[in-house]
Amino acid sequence: MSFDSEVRIRGRCEMVRTSESGHEGMIALYHFDRSTAAQKVRLSLAEKGLAWESRYVDPSLSKRDQHDPEYLKLNPRGVVPTLIHDGMIVRESQVILEYLEDAFPEPSLRPASPYDRARMRLWTKLVDEGIHVDSRTIGQCVAMRFVTLQADAVTLKKHYDAMPEETRRDNDRINNEAGLDSPLLPGALRRFKKIFGDIEHTLADARWLAGNTYSLADISLVVYVSRLESFQLSELWDNLPKLKDWHERIKQRPAYAEVIEKWGDTTSPARIQHGKDALPKVRMLWAQLDANVLSTSRNLRHRCDLCGR
Amino acid sequence: MSFDSEVRIRGRCEMVRTSESGHEGMIALYHFDRSTAAQKVRLSLAEKGLAWESRYVDPSLSKRDQHDPEYLKLNPRGVVPTLIHDGMIVRESQVILEYLEDAFPEPSLRPASPYDRARMRLWTKLVDEGIHVDSRTIGQCVAMRFVTLQADAVTLKKHYDAMPEETRRDNDRINNEAGLDSPLLPGALRRFKKIFGDIEHTLADARWLAGNTYSLADISLVVYVSRLESFQLSELWDNLPKLKDWHERIKQRPAYAEVIEKWGDTTSPARIQHGKDALPKVRMLWAQLDANVLSTSRNLRHRCDLCGR
Repeated sequence: MSFDSEVRIRGRCEMVRTSESGHEGMIALYHFDRSTAAQKVRLSLAEKGLAWESRYVDPSLSKRDQHDPEYLKLNPRGVVPTLIHDGMIVRESQVILEYLEDAFPEPSLRPASPYDRARMRLWTKLVDEGIHVDSRTIGQCVAMRFVTLQADAVTLKKHYDAMPEETRRDNDRINNEAGLDSPLLPGALRRFKKIFGDIEHTLADARWLAGNTYSLADISLVVYVSRLESFQLSELWDNLPKLKDWHERIKQRPAYAEVIEKWGDTTSPARIQHGKDALPKVRMLWAQLDANVLSTSRNLRHRCDLCGR
Repeated sequence: MSFDSEVRIRGRCEMVRTSESGHEGMIALYHFDRSTAAQKVRLSLAEKGLAWESRYVDPSLSKRDQHDPEYLKLNPRGVVPTLIHDGMIVRESQVILEYLEDAFPEPSLRPASPYDRARMRLWTKLVDEGIHVDSRTIGQCVAMRFVTLQADAVTLKKHYDAMPEETRRDNDRINNEAGLDSPLLPGALRRFKKIFGDIEHTLADARWLAGNTYSLADISLVVYVSRLESFQLSELWDNLPKLKDWHERIKQRPAYAEVIEKWGDTTSPARIQHGKDALPKVRMLWAQLDANVLSTSRNLRHRCDLCGR
């Protein structure tokens, strides 16, 4: 994979422009089909009806496009997605989502009122604070590690050595080696359980997470629910009817089918089987988290981090 | 401290309105003088020339206002600041900063162009991803732990038990006990060193972090530089002239003196002495981080996470 012909970087720490990226105003997206971060951006592009050019970044161990030195110039963390618009490079899914709102205000995926926008950002903030990493932890422990375990030691060492993000690398190593016994898994599940409770609580009074408007809050959270569903873990929110209904309503939107289901085949027999194999252990950990919460007096009842009630 | 008369909560997970908070449009800020998160919000209020009412949240071990059950209804994480505007409750400093931009657009602390706004948000995102927690780690290890060490065991246990944030509690416990030997300290310093390098690199080509406009990026980062300075650690960026100049230019703004220096007395003799005592060890850790970076081939040169160069 070469990015040489596509991108030329001018100046130092300033605007970066592509040199041969086609016509003015063109949108290109460096992405991977099943990346939750890429899914969010594709959802936004589809809801806004924006045309874009796909630049596929293959993260398989034999390719590792995301660690290609030319890609690292676009995205120093070595992650997808990266958006190119009108020659400008924009990174980090949550930043890209706000960028698309600023650059293409209509139709809006931000609520109109400042207060509802603040509610929206309380949700999107959870992604960068932990949920995205937690989702990766669950995915690695449940299913993705089996791909890694098949790789030879030299390939694997090369892969880890090239990862620019130390925390991501260390987490991956721990999760790939320990699987469902990873010390990182209970915390990841606990934080998901808390957020699922907050979603259920919020939807008791509103159609969407930030009020009556489908917004970046819904887009930013739903991809993680879909991710756990693809690992056959949807039993975990069987007792949360509002969350289930919200998830179904989003899945029925035309944008969802177009950019999640069309792009990411999450129904591979191996993934489904790994998920089914993991379910008993995950179910047990999830239930234990209940017990832990109830044994601590200050947490005798659910308190929503979003509204304080 | 009672918040009863100030706030009445309606409904469930929805808009929360104060009942006796004075006239329409009033701004009140629950804050603590030396909190970096509160400093950011006060900086924004001052730059915008907005009047606000102070509601002081005393975090000392004998008061612990931030763990008061009534305050936890306003702020479930038990942290400052919390903004009340026109009866609405807004939490989390980075969310509050964007809220103030949406509610009071002029004068703007967000750059005009979508691309520069994205650059701004790449910076502010670093705060929630780690720098805020890292700043707390450094502060506890260097100086704040000495206050905690003076508390009796019962008071301390009560304090920890009441902390709703597990990660914050666990970090505090580790840092208070281990001080400069805390296993969390080297990582915190390393991430600061990386970000300081990125700031220096960015300012080589632009007056402010997100281009030619003083923005939320500058406000969100400068408070952490000032925090380390208050611990007598400014020697750490002696070799970064652009960062030093940027810091000085912000300190010269009228808003800075009004809401940082007036509000937070960071010149207590004890704090200064603890900082001076810690400097040799911190200096050594900081220098070792250099060695570590240089020994890894992929990091032979500085790569800016903001621009990829």
